[in-house]
Amino acid sequence: MGKNYFREAVDRLAGYVPGFQPKVRDFVKLNTNENPYPPSPAVLEAIRAQFDRLRLYPDPTADVAREQVATLHDVAVDNVIIGNGSDELLTLAIRAFVEAGETVSFPEPTYSLYEVLVRIQGAVNRPVPFADDWSLPEALFGNDSPLTFLANPNAPTGTLLPTDAVRKLADSLDGMLLVDEAYADFAETNCMTLATECGNVIVTRSLSKSYSLAGLRVGFAVASAEIIAGLMKIRDSYNVDRLAAAGAAAAIADEAHLEANTGRIRKTRARLTEELAKLGFETLPSQANFVLTRPPGGLPAKDYFDALWERLILVRWFDRDRVRDFVRISIGTDEETDKLLDATREILGTR
Amino acid sequence: MGKNYFREAVDRLAGYVPGFQPKVRDFVKLNTNENPYPPSPAVLEAIRAQFDRLRLYPDPTADVAREQVATLHDVAVDNVIIGNGSDELLTLAIRAFVEAGETVSFPEPTYSLYEVLVRIQGAVNRPVPFADDWSLPEALFGNDSPLTFLANPNAPTGTLLPTDAVRKLADSLDGMLLVDEAYADFAETNCMTLATECGNVIVTRSLSKSYSLAGLRVGFAVASAEIIAGLMKIRDSYNVDRLAAAGAAAAIADEAHLEANTGRIRKTRARLTEELAKLGFETLPSQANFVLTRPPGGLPAKDYFDALWERLILVRWFDRDRVRDFVRISIGTDEETDKLLDATREILGTR
Repeated sequence: MGKNYFREAVDRLAGYVPGFQPKVRDFVKLNTNENPYPPSPAVLEAIRAQFDRLRLYPDPTADVAREQVATLHDVAVDNVIIGNGSDELLTLAIRAFVEAGETVSFPEPTYSLYEVLVRIQGAVNRPVPFADDWSLPEALFGNDSPLTFLANPNAPTGTLLPTDAVRKLADSLDGMLLVDEAYADFAETNCMTLATECGNVIVTRSLSKSYSLAGLRVGFAVASAEIIAGLMKIRDSYNVDRLAAAGAAAAIADEAHLEANTGRIRKTRARLTEELAKLGFETLPSQANFVLTRPPGGLPAKDYFDALWERLILVRWFDRDRVRDFVRISIGTDEETDKLLDATREILGTR
Repeated sequence: MGKNYFREAVDRLAGYVPGFQPKVRDFVKLNTNENPYPPSPAVLEAIRAQFDRLRLYPDPTADVAREQVATLHDVAVDNVIIGNGSDELLTLAIRAFVEAGETVSFPEPTYSLYEVLVRIQGAVNRPVPFADDWSLPEALFGNDSPLTFLANPNAPTGTLLPTDAVRKLADSLDGMLLVDEAYADFAETNCMTLATECGNVIVTRSLSKSYSLAGLRVGFAVASAEIIAGLMKIRDSYNVDRLAAAGAAAAIADEAHLEANTGRIRKTRARLTEELAKLGFETLPSQANFVLTRPPGGLPAKDYFDALWERLILVRWFDRDRVRDFVRISIGTDEETDKLLDATREILGTR
């Protein structure tokens, strides 16, 4: 290898490692929080309707999808930006608000992508450990970072912070607060009202989980019109393709489908939590489409993870403080959940 | 408006203004270099085949498309990265190689997005005027920017630089050279061989024009495996959606379709150039799917543009040095070209 052309920040970077995506379909795949049910049939119809226009550039701002977001969340179109997944919106926020050398704060453990994005920008991570009960740590309030990230419900814990606590955090900050609500459709409360009530709050959502559209890469952010206008300036000019924009709009318009879909997930989540409790697992109270759970009887989480893998059941284990003793299990169908529980009984029985 | 949360570079930014995308379909649309013909039918088939997997995340690196690029251009899969349009790859290059305060060089006039992306990064534009005959300016050779952009064929001129000249430029540079070949499939030569022969060259391509897939947002870059690995670290983890990756792979695999499609465009380009010459227009020699042409008899280019607009024909006029007296006309179907020529005769006749 010859000369190194990369910026130092990029050169040092290990890069984000997404969850394992098997190329064969034999696995019971409960590792990346995908939705086990199909998206609204209206999505496929809307995508097909674009087939004769693939040669034409999409609407640069994907207004067909913005309008549906605005209607559903009772905000103006100017309060909404559509992204190539909510990951793109996280990147845009860092690039919009954070200079190289400045800090980005967030409670930890949380979505590990934040740290990577901060490093790419040449900025400095300032993680603040969650309180013991997974409430907001005091040290996060009044921090002087130009940007604070807050996943709510949090990943990989699934725990939810009440809206009032998040509002207090926003009010305490001089900088921006990005509330990453990728899992909010599975939760009892959310912070969407803060997006327009607080001048320094951005709420992001994803269509990957609750809308069963991880393959389509669409997310959106809601914030004040001024904030959205600034983010618009730095996104790629056509950041969302024609099929994704049309499919997303159709998905968001189908409120009944969302309700039924997330209702099933919540029901299975309750059943899985209950069954795991009977087996002695300790599960954090989850408001997301996954649970973080600790195996009983001193069974190391990594061993449990490996034993499930051997049985072609994929879950996720994080080698990180405070969650190392847990595995994260995405909520699948009832059938997949039964397979997981059967395998778990077998694993516990053989010890 | 309250506090300003944005980085200074973002705050000062005007933002890139893409070509006008009308929401009605009455226009003869020759303003944004879209392809007038449909994509390969295999694209729609490949997209449909993904319909039952929309709920699942895509392959993070879109290998199905990378493999087709590797086959077509006779490189290894490790030499290829797929982007959400080639615009994303331009952004990644700046973020990979250029620190805030450093410079990015490019000959001008050229694709105006470069300047915007450089400003977003907080870097400094260093445009170098093309030579009078549109060959490479001496001052570009040996420049000390960490990144140099070169659109080849150039936009909005359509002019092509020979591969040898580009190789000399690459050899003269300490930094990276990104050769933006968005229009290369319409040209007689290209610089793809430099991507693997020179350690400091990245060649980017777009599926928007020659593959008739502007609506799908897919581009790719070819470079050394080390350079590609670095770019991979900073792209979004799932930057290309399932439908786009599958559609792109199918399009690239259908070489016969590309050949027929670009052949028709080249034929119409020759006819349009000839007919415009008969009317007294001065047209730059184009190797792209558009021509840059100057109206005859002192007719101001802006007036010609406006007169076409009144006749529902959209072309592009740039209020910039050296191209202000020209309009850029995308190559449409033969029927669209006839409409443009008829309208032009009418406009010239009424003066």
